[in-house]
Amino acid sequence: MSLITRLTTQSDSFERTLRALLAFDASQDESIERATADILRDVQARGDEAVLDYTRRFDRVAAPGIAALEIERGEWLAALIALPGEQRRALETAAERVRVYHDHQRAQTWTYTEADGTVLGQKITPLDRVGLYVPGGKAAYPSSVLMNAVPAKVAGVEEVIMVTPTPDGVRNPMVLAAAAIGGVDRVWGIGGAQAVAALAYGTQTLAAVDKIVGPGNAYVAAAKRRVFGTVGIDMIAGPSEILIIADGTTPADWIAMDLFSQAEHDEMAQAILLCPSAGYLDEVEAAIGRLLPSMPRADIIRSSLAQRGALILVRDLAEACAIANNIAPEHLEISTADPQRWADEIRHAGAIFLGRYSSEALGDYCAGPNHVLPTSRTARFSSPLGVYDFQKRSSLIQVSQAGAQTLGRVAATLAYGEGLQAHAASAEYRLDKPDLKS
Amino acid sequence: MSLITRLTTQSDSFERTLRALLAFDASQDESIERATADILRDVQARGDEAVLDYTRRFDRVAAPGIAALEIERGEWLAALIALPGEQRRALETAAERVRVYHDHQRAQTWTYTEADGTVLGQKITPLDRVGLYVPGGKAAYPSSVLMNAVPAKVAGVEEVIMVTPTPDGVRNPMVLAAAAIGGVDRVWGIGGAQAVAALAYGTQTLAAVDKIVGPGNAYVAAAKRRVFGTVGIDMIAGPSEILIIADGTTPADWIAMDLFSQAEHDEMAQAILLCPSAGYLDEVEAAIGRLLPSMPRADIIRSSLAQRGALILVRDLAEACAIANNIAPEHLEISTADPQRWADEIRHAGAIFLGRYSSEALGDYCAGPNHVLPTSRTARFSSPLGVYDFQKRSSLIQVSQAGAQTLGRVAATLAYGEGLQAHAASAEYRLDKPDLKS
Repeated sequence: MSLITRLTTQSDSFERTLRALLAFDASQDESIERATADILRDVQARGDEAVLDYTRRFDRVAAPGIAALEIERGEWLAALIALPGEQRRALETAAERVRVYHDHQRAQTWTYTEADGTVLGQKITPLDRVGLYVPGGKAAYPSSVLMNAVPAKVAGVEEVIMVTPTPDGVRNPMVLAAAAIGGVDRVWGIGGAQAVAALAYGTQTLAAVDKIVGPGNAYVAAAKRRVFGTVGIDMIAGPSEILIIADGTTPADWIAMDLFSQAEHDEMAQAILLCPSAGYLDEVEAAIGRLLPSMPRADIIRSSLAQRGALILVRDLAEACAIANNIAPEHLEISTADPQRWADEIRHAGAIFLGRYSSEALGDYCAGPNHVLPTSRTARFSSPLGVYDFQKRSSLIQVSQAGAQTLGRVAATLAYGEGLQAHAASAEYRLDKPDLKS
Repeated sequence: MSLITRLTTQSDSFERTLRALLAFDASQDESIERATADILRDVQARGDEAVLDYTRRFDRVAAPGIAALEIERGEWLAALIALPGEQRRALETAAERVRVYHDHQRAQTWTYTEADGTVLGQKITPLDRVGLYVPGGKAAYPSSVLMNAVPAKVAGVEEVIMVTPTPDGVRNPMVLAAAAIGGVDRVWGIGGAQAVAALAYGTQTLAAVDKIVGPGNAYVAAAKRRVFGTVGIDMIAGPSEILIIADGTTPADWIAMDLFSQAEHDEMAQAILLCPSAGYLDEVEAAIGRLLPSMPRADIIRSSLAQRGALILVRDLAEACAIANNIAPEHLEISTADPQRWADEIRHAGAIFLGRYSSEALGDYCAGPNHVLPTSRTARFSSPLGVYDFQKRSSLIQVSQAGAQTLGRVAATLAYGEGLQAHAASAEYRLDKPDLKS
C-alpha cells in the first residue's frame, strides 16, 4: 500500500474518488444503543445506587456511597502544585489566552424603542449548570478541559460539573490540574453512560444540569444523543480532519508534520493537502516517508494517511478553495503567500489557519480559539464551541398602549386568517381601551 | 371535571402536582420510527422516483415527473395578488417588522491583533441553502412561513427551499402568498418524511440543503431527528405553552382570553396563571366559564385547560418568578405594574411579554420577535429561532513569525504532556526560523 493516495482534479474519476475518501460511516451500533438505553433508564429510576453499581462494574471502583466518588478541590489543587513548572505555566498561559479570545464572543442584552413607545429586544442569560464529560485513560486531554470549561465560565455559568471515569481508581493529575485552572466547580469520578444519565436526570446527590458537553466513547455519544431534549448537548464529533491549501513555498517538512499532527489522533483521522505544484506534492510525499519512522505514533499515522489521507494536485488555488468549501473541513490551513486573499474565498470551515506560521497545533492548545470544532462537513451549518453555546436568549416584547392599537389590528387580521379566534380576541381586547398605566 | 385546576403553593403536595401537570411524554412511536427510516433509505437510494411514489401514495397526487411538483413563482404571486387587501397588508406589515427585529441579530466578523502581530478572530458566514418545511392542511400557517424564511434571508442564505404537501392537489394560497412576501426562493409541493429526505440527501432534481427548519407531524419530526448530522435542524417542538404572572390589576377577561389563545392550539397545549390574589383567580375562572362557550374552538380549549391548565395562588410575585424560572416556559406574560422589575428576575423563558398590553398573540404574528420558541423546559438551554440559526462561525488564526515562537513553546509543552509528539514537532518546526514573509 502506498504511503498516501495521490489524486489530481484533472482526472475524470476525481469527484467519485474524493467522495469515497471523505465517506465516513457514522451508523450506530445496535448493541451499544440498547445497553445505553438500559443504563439511562436504570439511573433515572434508582439514581445514586445505579451510578455506584455501574461504576463498580465498569471502572472497578467500589465506593461506600456516592459522596466517596467526588474528587475534592483539595486534590485538584495538589495536582496543580505538583505539576512541573513549565507545564503549569503552559496550562495557565493557554487558559488565559482562551479566556481573552472567548471574551469577544459574549453577547449582550439589547433593546430598541419604537416611536409609539413599544420596546423590543433580546435578553441574554447564561445557562445555570453545565456538565463537562472528560474521558478517562489515555484520551484524557487537559487541553480539552480548558476548551470546554473556560467558555462556560466566560458565559457566566454558575456551576460547571466535571465527570471523568477513574478506571481502577486511577485519577489523572493533569486533568485535575486543568480543572483547577479552568474554573470547574465540582468533579465527580464517574464516567460512561451512567455519568451522562446522572448529569441529565440528576440523582439524590447530583443536581441535574442544563447541558452536557465534552467528548467520550461510543457509549457516551449514544447517551448524549438520547438525553438531548432533556438537556442540551454539543455536537457528537466524528474523526478529526485537516485540509491544507499550499502554494508550494512552505518548507515541505512543515506541511508533512502538520498532516502527521492530524493523523496521529487516530486511524480514522483525515489529512488532505491541496497544491497546484506536482513537484511540491512529491517533496511532501518524500518528507512523509523520511519523517514517519521517527514518530512515536508512526503506526497510527501510517494507517490514517494510507486509508484516509490524500495529496491532491489542483489547477490553481481558486480551485483549491472551491474544494475546501465542498469538504467544509474541521481545520483548514492556508499555507500560502497572501493567505487573506484565499481565506476570503472560504465559506465553510471550522477553523481557518492563515499563513505558514499558523500550524494547527497552535490552535489545538493555546492560540485562543476553541479546539472543539464541527467535523464531517457539519461546518456547513455549525460553529466552533463558544460562549454562545453557554448563553441563551429570551425575546423581550413590551407593547405600549398605542402600539397595541396598530399591532392588535394586524395580529387579529392574521389570526382570523389562520382560524385562531382566541388569538384574534386576545389582541382585540387591547384595542381602544384606556391606558392602564403599564 | 372542573374547568381548570386550582393550586396553591402553600399546599404540601404543590411541587408534586405541578411536576405531574408539566410532564409531557415525548417518547417516540416505534412504528413511526421504522416507517420513517424506510422512507429515508428509499429516497436516498432512488431519489426523484421514490419522492414521486410516496407523494402519489400519501398525498394522492400523481405527477408525470418531479418537475411537475414544483410550484412556480407565478402561482405564489397570483396568490398574493388575489389576497384581500387587508390580509395582504397585514402579512406585509408582519414581514417588515420581523425583518427589522431580526436585523438586530445579525452577527459580524471580528478580529483583533496582538502586540506581536498575531491576528485572531471569527468569521461569520450564512448557510448556503436552507429547507423550510410547511405543514399542509389546516395547520398550514402563513405566519410560520414568515417566521422561518425571514431570519434565513436576513442572515444572507442564498436559497430558501420551501416544501409543503398538497393533499389531493390542494394548494394553500395564504401559504404561497407568505412565501412570496418572505423571500422564499423555490417551493415544492411535497411533504412528509420523503420531503425531509429529499432536502437532506438531495435527489437528481432537488439540491441537498444544509439545514431543515419548520414544524411538522410525527413523521416529519422523526425524519428530522434522523437526518440531523447530515444537515442541521431546528428544535423538535413540543406542545405550546404560556405562563402568565399577574398582579391582579389586568382585566380578568384579557387574561382569560390570553389563556385561551394558547389552549386553542391543541389539547396538549398548556396555559398556567400565577397570581398572589385568590379573588383575582376567582374572577379569571369566572371569565373562563363565561367566555368559553363563545369560542369556535371551545372543545379544544376546554380539553386543554382541564387536562393541562392551572390557576395557581402564589405567596407573592417573587415566588411567581421563581416558579417561572423552574418551568422555563415558552411564552411568559408579566401582566403587572412595573413589569420590568419582575422581568429582571427571569432567567429562563423563550419570550417575555411585559405589561398588560403585550398579549402573546401580538408576538405570534407581528411584534417582530420570532414565534418559533423553545418548549418543554428547553428554554433553560436554548433560544428562539433567529438569524444566528442561519449563520455559522469559523475561527480565524493568523500567527505571526514572532507569535509562533511564544505560542510554539507553549503548544509543544502541552502536546508532549498529552503524548502527541507530531503536534509538538509541528509547533517546534516554526521556532527560530527566518521570517518567510507570510
